[in-house]
Amino acid sequence: MSEAEESSGMAHNAGPDEKTLQVLRDMANRLRIRSIRTTNTWTTSYLIPCSNAEIMSVLFFYTMRYKQEDPENPDNDRCILSKGLPFVNVATGWPGQGLGAACGMAYTGKYFDQASYRVFCLLGDEESTEGSVWEAFAFASYYNLDNLMAIFDVNRIGHSSSMSVEHCIAIYQKRCEAFGWNTYVVDGRDVKTLCHVFSQAAQVRGKPTAVVAKTFKARGMPNVEDAESWYGRPMPKERVDAIVKLIESQIQTNEILVPSPPIEDSPQINIMNICMTSPPVYVADDTVSTQRACGLALAKLGHENDRVIVLDSDTKNCNFSDIFKKEHPERFIQCCIAEQNMVNVALGCSTRDRTIVFAYTFAAFFTRAFDQIRLGAISQININLIGCHCGVSTGDDNPYHMALEDLAMFRAIPNCVVFYPSDAVSTEHAVYLAANTKEMCFIRTSQAETAIIYTTQETFQIGQAKVVRHSDNDKVIVIGAGVTLHEALVAAAELSKEDISIRVIDLFTIKPLDIATIISNAKATGGQIITVEDHYPEGGIGGAVCAAVSMEPNIVVHKLAVMDVPRSGRCNEALDFSGISSRHIIVAVKCILMT
Amino acid sequence: MSEAEESSGMAHNAGPDEKTLQVLRDMANRLRIRSIRTTNTWTTSYLIPCSNAEIMSVLFFYTMRYKQEDPENPDNDRCILSKGLPFVNVATGWPGQGLGAACGMAYTGKYFDQASYRVFCLLGDEESTEGSVWEAFAFASYYNLDNLMAIFDVNRIGHSSSMSVEHCIAIYQKRCEAFGWNTYVVDGRDVKTLCHVFSQAAQVRGKPTAVVAKTFKARGMPNVEDAESWYGRPMPKERVDAIVKLIESQIQTNEILVPSPPIEDSPQINIMNICMTSPPVYVADDTVSTQRACGLALAKLGHENDRVIVLDSDTKNCNFSDIFKKEHPERFIQCCIAEQNMVNVALGCSTRDRTIVFAYTFAAFFTRAFDQIRLGAISQININLIGCHCGVSTGDDNPYHMALEDLAMFRAIPNCVVFYPSDAVSTEHAVYLAANTKEMCFIRTSQAETAIIYTTQETFQIGQAKVVRHSDNDKVIVIGAGVTLHEALVAAAELSKEDISIRVIDLFTIKPLDIATIISNAKATGGQIITVEDHYPEGGIGGAVCAAVSMEPNIVVHKLAVMDVPRSGRCNEALDFSGISSRHIIVAVKCILMT
Repeated sequence: MSEAEESSGMAHNAGPDEKTLQVLRDMANRLRIRSIRTTNTWTTSYLIPCSNAEIMSVLFFYTMRYKQEDPENPDNDRCILSKGLPFVNVATGWPGQGLGAACGMAYTGKYFDQASYRVFCLLGDEESTEGSVWEAFAFASYYNLDNLMAIFDVNRIGHSSSMSVEHCIAIYQKRCEAFGWNTYVVDGRDVKTLCHVFSQAAQVRGKPTAVVAKTFKARGMPNVEDAESWYGRPMPKERVDAIVKLIESQIQTNEILVPSPPIEDSPQINIMNICMTSPPVYVADDTVSTQRACGLALAKLGHENDRVIVLDSDTKNCNFSDIFKKEHPERFIQCCIAEQNMVNVALGCSTRDRTIVFAYTFAAFFTRAFDQIRLGAISQININLIGCHCGVSTGDDNPYHMALEDLAMFRAIPNCVVFYPSDAVSTEHAVYLAANTKEMCFIRTSQAETAIIYTTQETFQIGQAKVVRHSDNDKVIVIGAGVTLHEALVAAAELSKEDISIRVIDLFTIKPLDIATIISNAKATGGQIITVEDHYPEGGIGGAVCAAVSMEPNIVVHKLAVMDVPRSGRCNEALDFSGISSRHIIVAVKCILMT
Repeated sequence: MSEAEESSGMAHNAGPDEKTLQVLRDMANRLRIRSIRTTNTWTTSYLIPCSNAEIMSVLFFYTMRYKQEDPENPDNDRCILSKGLPFVNVATGWPGQGLGAACGMAYTGKYFDQASYRVFCLLGDEESTEGSVWEAFAFASYYNLDNLMAIFDVNRIGHSSSMSVEHCIAIYQKRCEAFGWNTYVVDGRDVKTLCHVFSQAAQVRGKPTAVVAKTFKARGMPNVEDAESWYGRPMPKERVDAIVKLIESQIQTNEILVPSPPIEDSPQINIMNICMTSPPVYVADDTVSTQRACGLALAKLGHENDRVIVLDSDTKNCNFSDIFKKEHPERFIQCCIAEQNMVNVALGCSTRDRTIVFAYTFAAFFTRAFDQIRLGAISQININLIGCHCGVSTGDDNPYHMALEDLAMFRAIPNCVVFYPSDAVSTEHAVYLAANTKEMCFIRTSQAETAIIYTTQETFQIGQAKVVRHSDNDKVIVIGAGVTLHEALVAAAELSKEDISIRVIDLFTIKPLDIATIISNAKATGGQIITVEDHYPEGGIGGAVCAAVSMEPNIVVHKLAVMDVPRSGRCNEALDFSGISSRHIIVAVKCILMT
């Protein structure tokens, strides 16, 4: 196609003939009937989503290229139904999340796969009020995702009331354009226009395309179309039957269109069984923060497999992800300060096993994306999240930057593996183990520079704690992780001068928890456990250990944790002020031994 | 002022004279020096934020009206420094949260106080990538908040790299306009223009105003201004001294401007000591869901105090907040599907004790606003959040809609009171207690219709559990809340037929937890506790109880909770499938008694 044609805004071909258009209209009505039947079998019925049947018909039977019999084929075009639809059996999302995931797929298609597949995302007007949608809009235009098309189904009617901007299509158009998207406004009922515009979008270079489609909720249903009162209410069966009959009467053909096959140009890839081909290089005298060790491990991992990618939200100079960026610039995605979108993009990049994703930012900032993380777990998405600047040991920084609730958040995610490595060696192992784990993983890292605990030959497993200090005379067990493990080791050394022996355990993973090691060691040392953590008391290490031993009558757990909103201060002062320093561990041990 | 003048875009007065302008420039330079000195005393220095000194000078010493000696006076104009600044001692926020809070203050000023005070919010360009900023933009224009002005400090330089849209001021302008704001573009260094434009903004009716100010990071510092490499790095003292000397040389006057006094037209209000003037009206045979009871209680509370307001995110027909809306339409704020902004608006409405705020949506949706909630707690903000559709008992709904991690989230918020009422009577008390509590409160409610447990004369206190069934022969304690308390009562009735007595405890508040009641009852019944909760095992009731009794060697806790991602299904089926129904409680009790 010539530049002149492209810029003239004309379609690249004559478009479908009249017969095809009628088949598309008929297929839309069949979808409509299926939708009406499906939603009315529910006890809590949502208003029959008939507004976008024509859009779906054109998308699935005219525009998209895919193998119907092989829906997970990597060459297929992708379609994200962000608003959710009952009549198509593909992954549907949560309002406001679909477009970010679509961005991740489109980024992967354009830059990693460099393949022809395209990505389509259908959004509801009501979800455009979610800010994460505009994070995705900014991302897609910044990265010129011209393989991405978003369709706004503007049917005017929200969940509990009509939308604030109603059918003011021009407002949507203005917003899409302001965020740098090529934008079309269409009548969402007009299959001919939809065919034409969807074809046009495929020709646009350098920009994603938004199609703002004016639609009508419950389209085709007399006295229900465009009315607000039916949302969430079931409809009497006789009325449903009459409506279905009316829609059936408009169907003129019996034909079924077959989608075009995809262009088969996605590369063959393998993201399985990534080995650590050389051991960590740290030596005993090093002091390295686990967040720096994470940056180094990511860069190393990137050399083992070329589908390892890292996402950052403008913190790369703090979390050391810039080390990865320097060595693998083409696999680093800068997501700016937009954590919800960063997690959504990660979800999208990871689908169909196209990449091994690590999203790395301040652990505190992941609280912004808790809902996206939750969705990822429900959808069993394979992403890895790394949080830095954990706890009061972050020191001088603003209290808002210190994560003190991240363990509570990630422990509550079903099947999420929660790593909390305590030195650079175990951090490197955590990164490799996360890369090889199908479930969602979270790695908690710290800013404080800490000693190397493990030799480079040490091996690590998920759910396996390490007893890092022990003797036959141990009277108490101290369980720490990260900075508090080092405090426990300092306390142990101090106490040994007074002939008091304590056992020190490094959990390595907080979830799954090595319950067997905790209980057997507790039983061997008199049943007294002290947990010490750089986290609020709720939902963290203390909570996990208490829950793990709750059925053991002779094990007692004493908890040291950060009891209140932190102040800023140097790392050592902050640990001491917060009651989790070696001094407090020593006091706790002596209290136990005195009673 | 006439309409003609207003629309001509001219300022309403001649503006400040040349001498005043010079004083404003000098005060900007003094702020700049103070800022340089402050930031360089930090160990981790952020790049000296000199870009907005002129904006601050004009805002604080020319535009804003306030009593310097009484910063919390309700008549004062408000200023939110969303990006945070070291040299002014007012509440600063977290990137992306300030504008939403400013919206809450402006809404309160315009609609509840109907007062003259205005609200100013300074934002950084880097935070405009946060989607919550655009949620606030949509909110402010929809509600015509013409008493609100946002100033974008577009200095181009982000935290780890320069911004994606750099100094493309036109992009910010387009986005602000697309979201319905009156928008000006200015040179942020030009105090005369700033004075003029800020005055103009005050005359605009029906629209909020955005001022897009092109600025330069480290303005006034040779070889540092507009450079990226200095961010986060401290500067040698000699260099700082030379820069300060240079800036000092530009100061021409010694004068200090005094801000104009505010217009004193905010109403006197009282939000303290709200009494329940009549008891709950439920009778023993009622079955009422706690989320419906919450809607009714809010409407009733609204009659006790006219500063009670309710915020909704398009769920009012599910959470029954429409009952409040019907009785108090002028105090109901529809925030659409934008939960981050809803919480930010709540924060803003609650400042200076102007309102008693309840934000009510699906508990699952609050995961979107975890960061905003976290900030609210750090800032000790007095807001009340109510979450409905908790747990698998939500039944037919989509699994994404079921909150199963909300207790973990809210328990991890310092000082947050977490209510989990089990019937309509206690729900009403929870709402009244929350209204009278200074700390943040969360009330967990359910969709299932459940029996009335308490008489209308029962009294409730925060941190006080209720023993709802007991006898001298009790062998086990079952602790439930919400739907699981009713399952426990069913189990107790069934077991009593086999002459097995169990004690049943209703916690009422999960945080603070009534540890004394739990321990004393456990000791009286043999030390066997079963917790049963419609929540994931991590961070919920089981976790709280295990932590509470962790120092008691002879108390054992058995936990029943939702072990995996839920399926949809009818309430009873879902409880049974998830292992938290009366049947599972009976099995657990019998297991304990057999061993």
